[in-house]
Amino acid sequence: MPAATSAAAPAAHAPRPCGEFDLIRRYFLPSAPPAPSGGGVELGIGDDAALLAPQPGMLLAVSSDMLVAGRHFFEDADPAALGHKALAVNLSDLAAMGAQPLAFTLALALPQADHAWLAAFSQGLLALAGGHGCPLVGGDTTRGPLNVCITIFGQTPRGQALTRAGARAGDDIWISGSLGAARLALHALQGRITLPPATLAAARQRLERPAPRVALGLALRGVARSAIDLSDGLAGDLPHVLQASSQAAGQPLGAELDEQALIGLTAPWAQEAQEEQEAQPACGKSALDAAARLQAALAGGDDYELLFTAAPGARQAVLAAAAAAQTPVTRAGRVTRAEAAAPASIFLRAASGALRPLPAEARGFDHFAA
Amino acid sequence: MPAATSAAAPAAHAPRPCGEFDLIRRYFLPSAPPAPSGGGVELGIGDDAALLAPQPGMLLAVSSDMLVAGRHFFEDADPAALGHKALAVNLSDLAAMGAQPLAFTLALALPQADHAWLAAFSQGLLALAGGHGCPLVGGDTTRGPLNVCITIFGQTPRGQALTRAGARAGDDIWISGSLGAARLALHALQGRITLPPATLAAARQRLERPAPRVALGLALRGVARSAIDLSDGLAGDLPHVLQASSQAAGQPLGAELDEQALIGLTAPWAQEAQEEQEAQPACGKSALDAAARLQAALAGGDDYELLFTAAPGARQAVLAAAAAAQTPVTRAGRVTRAEAAAPASIFLRAASGALRPLPAEARGFDHFAA
Repeated sequence: MPAATSAAAPAAHAPRPCGEFDLIRRYFLPSAPPAPSGGGVELGIGDDAALLAPQPGMLLAVSSDMLVAGRHFFEDADPAALGHKALAVNLSDLAAMGAQPLAFTLALALPQADHAWLAAFSQGLLALAGGHGCPLVGGDTTRGPLNVCITIFGQTPRGQALTRAGARAGDDIWISGSLGAARLALHALQGRITLPPATLAAARQRLERPAPRVALGLALRGVARSAIDLSDGLAGDLPHVLQASSQAAGQPLGAELDEQALIGLTAPWAQEAQEEQEAQPACGKSALDAAARLQAALAGGDDYELLFTAAPGARQAVLAAAAAAQTPVTRAGRVTRAEAAAPASIFLRAASGALRPLPAEARGFDHFAA
Repeated sequence: MPAATSAAAPAAHAPRPCGEFDLIRRYFLPSAPPAPSGGGVELGIGDDAALLAPQPGMLLAVSSDMLVAGRHFFEDADPAALGHKALAVNLSDLAAMGAQPLAFTLALALPQADHAWLAAFSQGLLALAGGHGCPLVGGDTTRGPLNVCITIFGQTPRGQALTRAGARAGDDIWISGSLGAARLALHALQGRITLPPATLAAARQRLERPAPRVALGLALRGVARSAIDLSDGLAGDLPHVLQASSQAAGQPLGAELDEQALIGLTAPWAQEAQEEQEAQPACGKSALDAAARLQAALAGGDDYELLFTAAPGARQAVLAAAAAAQTPVTRAGRVTRAEAAAPASIFLRAASGALRPLPAEARGFDHFAA
């Protein structure tokens, strides 16, 4: 790791009551899950680099995500939930490639060595890692504004990765699980809406402890033609698939999304909230009408569901993969030939059959938008 | 990438004059070096994950480093130099494993999208990447306090990686290049010492644009028994080799370092400074006496030289490897059997033959020391 050049450098000559290597040893090594049997990890934490051994014929899938306090999570976020989420968003990227998790590295900047925080953070991180057989193999810790950067490694057979570029005109568009709950929780925590308590608790769980769709991604190898995970919202992420696939196919592609299917994707939380609200009529209903549910489905960030496309002839195979992964999936539209580039080529089809362009306010989040 | 939960989230609905994907496209794609022929990179920037293909029989070496403004570099650091250094410290980790660079990911938090800064940063980063055939394959950009996190990937034949754990009693200790110049520059920039202008310029080059010893690391495969790169200073990093090797060997290992050899490792800058000072006697001399040069060799962070050990019978092979890599190496001590664990088992041997323990003030830097 790099040496420090801070004006605080005289710390170099102080005793080390709890130094960098102690931090890693104390919080991240003892409870780290062992490498999965069958391997992948030849050398873990503690050397200049970790050594990974993908199985013969496998490609290594690599993804990095950086989470910044005040931007991706509240400054006072529960550290166990943050540990979970930091790894979950990376596992979600592997899921979207159809890659089997192998290992990850963690680079962590902390304002100070806060032991209670580190214990909770590492617990949340390593519990999810253990559940996916994905050990921590290296990284870096340093003092600085709170910042969590995870790079994850997975493997996928050559030619079977689920890229963004494989969609073709006529493909069905599928979405896993449900949409909008994380957005609902965020808006409630920001004080923009009011939710009944049980609904808020469930939605907050989706915001803070998303469950990456790794099993579904693996089951979709050889079935789906393209995939992406929904981190910035359906309306923000679908254009990435259409743009990459248009380039690969040599023709502009668009999409038609089924409004009723999208509203149905919010049903798990919307129905629960409806029941709770009817029992407690003092709470507002603004989050629950059809227009609000459609907007939540389109613009909800942080869902970490998979959006994938597959040929219409593969519908039975998609449903079998979903059943094998114990993950519900919904057919929510189709890929079309288009005149224009995405997102202008994305349309919503109402129950009446009428088509309208994707509303501009549905667009996803961009971290450097003005 | 993760969605943002900031109170500034309404930016999601604003137009995107220079969004996240534009930033990557504009600054990091056009001048990115192509993947080296013979491959390694099957899919680069733009999907949920990159896909790497290590050659058959190769292990993948993985290392992450996080650089924080105000900690590892000055807030107003030259962005081109920062881009260079952020990758150089990661390449240095690969060098210390004897691994051939394949690719890297970049996660970057920036206070704002500063175009001049990004243009210079990416130029410095990609120029070094191109020189090592090591393309950028993915990553993340977000708004936040300036933070640069790079994860690098290399490959090394199974069984030939230069780990920290391979040193044995009786091994020679070797060090590449020269030591202490980066520390000298840091102290001058902090106003703690005064340097003649040409010496400062040369030392500053070592601090800001270190040259990772990748070629030497590759040439030492099958020759060296252990290696580490010197980022926190010889006195801070040598104990890592001794501790890992003691554990592997099942016996406590120590080291004797040759004071004259260590002082000699500072010769490139010390002699130049001496000559410049004699021409300009107004400048101070404190940085140049033997004790100060020894301290600089022991405690100088940010050198990014390789420390490696090899059997005495391998001296000719070491020199041949160094010649092939066009990198000078110095034999600076030997690994010993010890009673205690490192760093207490590290001694300095004076020209007279007298042994003394490594001075406490020579220890390296720890990012969480009190």
